[in-house]
Amino acid sequence: MAETNTPTEPVRFETHPDRYVHWRLDFPAEHGGKVARLVMDVKEDRGMRPGYPLKLNSYDLGVDIELADALQRIRFEHPEVRALVVTSAKDRIFCSGANIYMLGSSTHGFKVNFCKFTNETRLYLEELSAESGVPSLASLNGTASGGGYELAIACDEIVLADDGSSAVSFPEAPLLAVLPGTGGLTRLVDKRKIRRDLADAFSTIAEGVRGKRSVEWGLVDEAPPKAKLDEVTRRRVEALVGRSKRKAFPAVKLGPLEAQRSASPSGDEQKIEYQYVTLELTPKLRTARLTVRAPSTKQPETPEELAKAGASAWAIQAFRELDDALLELRFNQPLVGVVSVETAGAPEAVLAVDAMLAKHQDDGLVREVTLLMKRVLKRMDLTAKSFFALVTPGSCFVGSLLELGLAADRVYMKDSDDEDVSVATSPMNAGLLPMANGLSRLQTRFLKEPERVARVLEEGALGTRDAVKAGLVTFAPDDLDWDDEIRIAFEERAAMSPDAMTGMEASLRFAGPETMETKIFGRLSAWQNWIFQRPNAVGERGALTLYGKPERPEFNWQRT
Amino acid sequence: MAETNTPTEPVRFETHPDRYVHWRLDFPAEHGGKVARLVMDVKEDRGMRPGYPLKLNSYDLGVDIELADALQRIRFEHPEVRALVVTSAKDRIFCSGANIYMLGSSTHGFKVNFCKFTNETRLYLEELSAESGVPSLASLNGTASGGGYELAIACDEIVLADDGSSAVSFPEAPLLAVLPGTGGLTRLVDKRKIRRDLADAFSTIAEGVRGKRSVEWGLVDEAPPKAKLDEVTRRRVEALVGRSKRKAFPAVKLGPLEAQRSASPSGDEQKIEYQYVTLELTPKLRTARLTVRAPSTKQPETPEELAKAGASAWAIQAFRELDDALLELRFNQPLVGVVSVETAGAPEAVLAVDAMLAKHQDDGLVREVTLLMKRVLKRMDLTAKSFFALVTPGSCFVGSLLELGLAADRVYMKDSDDEDVSVATSPMNAGLLPMANGLSRLQTRFLKEPERVARVLEEGALGTRDAVKAGLVTFAPDDLDWDDEIRIAFEERAAMSPDAMTGMEASLRFAGPETMETKIFGRLSAWQNWIFQRPNAVGERGALTLYGKPERPEFNWQRT
Repeated sequence: MAETNTPTEPVRFETHPDRYVHWRLDFPAEHGGKVARLVMDVKEDRGMRPGYPLKLNSYDLGVDIELADALQRIRFEHPEVRALVVTSAKDRIFCSGANIYMLGSSTHGFKVNFCKFTNETRLYLEELSAESGVPSLASLNGTASGGGYELAIACDEIVLADDGSSAVSFPEAPLLAVLPGTGGLTRLVDKRKIRRDLADAFSTIAEGVRGKRSVEWGLVDEAPPKAKLDEVTRRRVEALVGRSKRKAFPAVKLGPLEAQRSASPSGDEQKIEYQYVTLELTPKLRTARLTVRAPSTKQPETPEELAKAGASAWAIQAFRELDDALLELRFNQPLVGVVSVETAGAPEAVLAVDAMLAKHQDDGLVREVTLLMKRVLKRMDLTAKSFFALVTPGSCFVGSLLELGLAADRVYMKDSDDEDVSVATSPMNAGLLPMANGLSRLQTRFLKEPERVARVLEEGALGTRDAVKAGLVTFAPDDLDWDDEIRIAFEERAAMSPDAMTGMEASLRFAGPETMETKIFGRLSAWQNWIFQRPNAVGERGALTLYGKPERPEFNWQRT
Repeated sequence: MAETNTPTEPVRFETHPDRYVHWRLDFPAEHGGKVARLVMDVKEDRGMRPGYPLKLNSYDLGVDIELADALQRIRFEHPEVRALVVTSAKDRIFCSGANIYMLGSSTHGFKVNFCKFTNETRLYLEELSAESGVPSLASLNGTASGGGYELAIACDEIVLADDGSSAVSFPEAPLLAVLPGTGGLTRLVDKRKIRRDLADAFSTIAEGVRGKRSVEWGLVDEAPPKAKLDEVTRRRVEALVGRSKRKAFPAVKLGPLEAQRSASPSGDEQKIEYQYVTLELTPKLRTARLTVRAPSTKQPETPEELAKAGASAWAIQAFRELDDALLELRFNQPLVGVVSVETAGAPEAVLAVDAMLAKHQDDGLVREVTLLMKRVLKRMDLTAKSFFALVTPGSCFVGSLLELGLAADRVYMKDSDDEDVSVATSPMNAGLLPMANGLSRLQTRFLKEPERVARVLEEGALGTRDAVKAGLVTFAPDDLDWDDEIRIAFEERAAMSPDAMTGMEASLRFAGPETMETKIFGRLSAWQNWIFQRPNAVGERGALTLYGKPERPEFNWQRT
């Protein structure tokens, strides 16, 4: 019954363009530096683990980590960039999607988390366009199949070479018995708004759709002859540059995070220490402790000072660290089920940072920093761990750090007679850090009584009883009960079925409106996860398992 | 790898209050006939199949079929009813939800379809209130757990006896390692808008929440002492009667459908013939043929004539038959994967019915008939079979029957030189038969070019080439190609993984906005289906499997 873990080294998410193996990030001179170009050129023999050659520009997590890094660097290190072209260095192939042998040999948990990460990265592409003024164009110099076409439809525009063979396709369902699950099906009908019957036909034609028909069906925007592809790409990308609303700001270099990793002699306890974040792991107990600290040094008070401080500013450094810690939890700590979310430090320091950020939202860099915080908090919303926030004397759940409590499944706040315990909002809680559903976490929390949102935003620091009244706290044990109650809560949660908790949290965290983004994670991903368990895909005779082998898959023909 | 079918007789969905085993439908004199009361009193030994006593008002499909029938009868046979009370005849127990032993011993496919049917029935309760002016009250004279509380939150109001023991609870996750999947989690945060952290706590407390706290958390509306329950119920239901906007109309008796079932000597082919619907089944080929015929006799031209014709009117009879045929496909034909959707008869007959219905939407009975059509078409949207509509000479895809084509995954229309082939819209396509996403099927189809909706509604009959131009047709083979192309399309579809098709269709059919309803089927159900495959629930040592046995479940602790 137990799945074995894919025997693999821990995944590390930090990289740098100088070390990219599979992508080239350049800035063609012909566009005067205003266009970034991401060229996919996957090295077959450089997969994250042995066992699957990355043929035909297929990708694994390592390829996608580089793509995510590149998008982050374009944001911070290349503020002069006003449009992005994604293309391939391979002849006749743009990208053939996630590597099938990698998928076939991965555990269920890894598959699910891999898809989630790639989905987030595709959404980053769209946010780069919508929020940062860097629209993107997929220039398909060859076939884009499966995840390759999913990457393309995450771009604003798609141009496909009409050469008699290059196609766009979703061969997942017909060939592999799984879904185009990296947002593909959802983007077909919800982003490109392709008619459902054409989307149905397209998603079952393994060889895909080429040339004129791909334009007629709305799958691509233009399909010029191969010889004209570069010219059309150039023309379109110049138009994208022209309509970009990107704001200028000084480049900010993103240095390494320099996490310190240690373990107890038994290995039962592990610790990862960053500058502002600490992650303490006790996989044996299925728990972890995630602590985020307020800044203790003077922080920038103006956008100019922020630009000068660069990536060392708390708002950038702390949230980059938090992002890395969340990915550590997802990929390297499958046994951890419950995470205590804690904060420490001086509330006024966080409130000062928040005030500066909220005041200067028209500044390009301030906006980028805010978007970074937003993305990291969304990553937390989508992390399949139970988060219990613990508000205690000395903790710092205020403003942007209060979002950690609002993102948690529960908030425990000590009702102490002896010591001060408080929480507070800042302007950053008023909509600058929206969830995937488009609402702020306060709005999502108070769907029933929307008037509470404004009320709590007007309050200053709230002690425990006032915070309970305001609706910010789930349970408020007193000094006497605190230790026992917290211990029992963690023990009970850690004893429940991990699957049931994952499904439950996915259903309770996103009340209110749905967006393309919540549809991708809530509907498409849930179905894909279901299919990733089905014998028709992953059984001994399943289509995913047998891909590339001479045997034909055998299906259980019962429709569910 | 192959699942075995639960060895069971075919499920039949027709019943009548005279034959109810588990429910009593009465109309208490004290409310002057204006209130219907549904009293749950499940007979332990009368489950649909042997092996699970239905203790503590737990339910199986048979119990829910009676509930669905009762709601339909209240609609048509009891137009005087203006409010509904749902309660129980058992002491100290309202309803303990779906029977666990039944679930534990069912195939995956049956579990999924059972949950879908119960979900639809809960939504019917809500539609009865929202669209027909019959609001409902759950009077909890005892504990409502799991599906029991899910039934309660499908009602507009909930009153719980505060007797020191009666509770509302969702013990699924903590006790069974599955979800409250009959809309429960979604309704907590999206209908009752309970704060997500309280919803999280509630959904993990196996023993549930009682009395005052259940009111504070918003789980119920009032929790009077047991002795006052009847009085409070009476007071509240009278208030519901007072605010009901139900329109009077003459009662319409729903007679039996009288389907004729036959099979070929080999058993390879089966046929179900109703008056207006025929279902031909070839499970060996994994295909079926569903034909709906236009009326051939004079149909009512006014609401008065409709009332006189009663259930024999085509609009009622044909759609009741279609509903029954869809349920046959879901429950009794698991091997069927692809269904050809065909129509026959005189287009002008359907257009005349449609015109009458559209003209008299302010009439109570006309409204009920329209809602019936709407529910049946929604049932089709949610049926996990591939539907290919075939428009040929002699077919009748017009107006309300055109919706069958718009609900299909693809539309094939013959491009004939020799014979007339056409489709046409009617006012019934203009929003009176919305999908679960709140849009008409035309609106959903033309999300990209919304102006097409009005244009196609203004057209008369469209021949094949015009229908293609209008965007109503997927493929239009000519006389020569038709047979081959259709044969190949069905063979190819029937050869694909049933699971991949189910997940793909669930993702492509509901573009556009999401509602509580689409969230239930798209998000909550998808996660539940995933969990229903997980060893932690259904493996040999899974919690659902071991429920009621002395052994403790064993979990794979990996979070996904």
